[in-house]
Amino acid sequence: MTPYRERIQDLLIEYAWRLDNDKLEEWTELFTEDARYEILPRDNFDRGYPLALLCCRNQAMLRDRILALRVANEYNIHYDRHMINAPKIMDVQGDEICIEANYLVVQTSQDGVTKVFSAGLYKDRIKVVDGQLRFKEKLVIADTFCVPTLIATPI
Amino acid sequence: MTPYRERIQDLLIEYAWRLDNDKLEEWTELFTEDARYEILPRDNFDRGYPLALLCCRNQAMLRDRILALRVANEYNIHYDRHMINAPKIMDVQGDEICIEANYLVVQTSQDGVTKVFSAGLYKDRIKVVDGQLRFKEKLVIADTFCVPTLIATPI
Amino acid sequence: MTPYRERIQDLLIEYAWRLDNDKLEEWTELFTEDARYEILPRDNFDRGYPLALLCCRNQAMLRDRILALRVANEYNIHYDRHMINAPKIMDVQGDEICIEANYLVVQTSQDGVTKVFSAGLYKDRIKVVDGQLRFKEKLVIADTFCVPTLIATPI
Repeated sequence: MTPYRERIQDLLIEYAWRLDNDKLEEWTELFTEDARYEILPRDNFDRGYPLALLCCRNQAMLRDRILALRVANEYNIHYDRHMINAPKIMDVQGDEICIEANYLVVQTSQDGVTKVFSAGLYKDRIKVVDGQLRFKEKLVIADTFCVPTLIATPI
Repeated sequence: MTPYRERIQDLLIEYAWRLDNDKLEEWTELFTEDARYEILPRDNFDRGYPLALLCCRNQAMLRDRILALRVANEYNIHYDRHMINAPKIMDVQGDEICIEANYLVVQTSQDGVTKVFSAGLYKDRIKVVDGQLRFKEKLVIADTFCVPTLIATPI
Repeated sequence: MTPYRERIQDLLIEYAWRLDNDKLEEWTELFTEDARYEILPRDNFDRGYPLALLCCRNQAMLRDRILALRVANEYNIHYDRHMINAPKIMDVQGDEICIEANYLVVQTSQDGVTKVFSAGLYKDRIKVVDGQLRFKEKLVIADTFCVPTLIATPI
C-alpha cells in the first residue's frame, strides 16, 4: 500500500490536475459531503475575521457553484495552472490529517499572456472516506487580494 | 532500489537542472534515441491540430537544435528556472510510464528582471533504457503563447 | 524512521513555512551554529566573485539580522511565498548531504498585488545535528538582481 505521505501528495496533485484541465465536476468529488471550502484573504484570516471571498459549507454547494459557472459561462475565459509545494504535515489524528501547502496559481488570458493570479496557503483537513483521501476542510488563505479579474473558477 | 515514483521525480528534476544550468548537451541525453519532443500551444493540442511551435522527432534533432543554439548564440541571453509540480502517474504499461506534471518557467533577462515565461503541462512517456529512466515522448502543452521573446532554449 | 529523502524535503518545506509565516526566529534554528548563509547574484557566483548581497557566517549573525528586522520594522511590509522544487541530491558524505533546488519567491504588497520577487537556486549543505537535519551552508544563487524593493526578509 502507498504510504500516506505519497497519498496526500497525490491528492494535492489530483486537485490541481482536475482544476487546470477543466474537470470541475470531478474536482468536487475530492471533497467529503460535509466539506467546508473557503477562500479567505490572509489579512482577514490572521485577524480572525470570518469574512470569506467564497464559502461553501458542503459538497452540494460546491457542485451548485460549478453548475452556475457552466450555465453562466460569462466569466473571463482563461487557463489556470496550480503550482503546489510539497505539503507540511501539521497533525495526524485517527483518520484525519491536517496539512499546509504553499500554492501559486498563474492564469493565462485569451491573449496568451500568463500572469500571477493568486499566491497563498492551503490549510487542509484530509479524511479517509471508503479508503480514499478526501478534503473535509480546505481553507485557501490568499495573500493576493487585488486581482484584475474576478475569482470565477476555484483556487 | 529506489522506488519508481522517486525515480520519475528525479528525472523531472534532472531535466530542469540541466536546462537551468546550461547543460543543454547533457539535457538531450535524457531522451531516448527515437524520442519525440514537441512544444504545442494548448489551444492547438485541445483541438487536435498537429501544429507545433517546436518539433523534434528524435534525439539527433534535439542535439542539432542545441548545436545551432551554441553556434548562433544570437538569441536573447537569459536565465531560466523551471518549477515543476510532483507528477501525476497516468498509466504504467510494462517498462513505459505516462505522467503529467504542471510546469512554470520564469525567465530572468540581462537586466536582472524575472518574469513568467511559460506555464503549462508536461505530458511525458517515460521508458527504462539500460536501467535508466528516459523520455520517449515529451509533449510540452503551453498555455502561454504570447511571449515577448522567442523560444530559444527548450521549455 | 523516515527515509532521508523525505527528511530533506521536509526541511526545505519547513524552511519555506517558517519564512512565509513570519516565524523568523524559529527559521534561524534550522541552521547549525556555524552555518554560512549567503545570497549571491548568479553572475557573481558563476564568475567566482565572492561579493554577496547578504552574508551571515554563523547562526548568531542570522539571529542578529532578524532582531534588527524586528526592531527597525521600517522595511516594506509584504507577504512572501516560497515555491521550492523537489531537491536534487548532489552528494552524500557521512552525515553531510549536498542538495540543490530551484526556488521562486513571490511577494505580495500591502496593495494585495503579487509579483515575482526572486528566482534562483538553493545550494545547500545539510548536516544531521542531534538527529535533526540542519543547514550547515545555504547559498542562495539569485538569478534576479533587479528588484523594486530591497531584500529585507531572507530568501
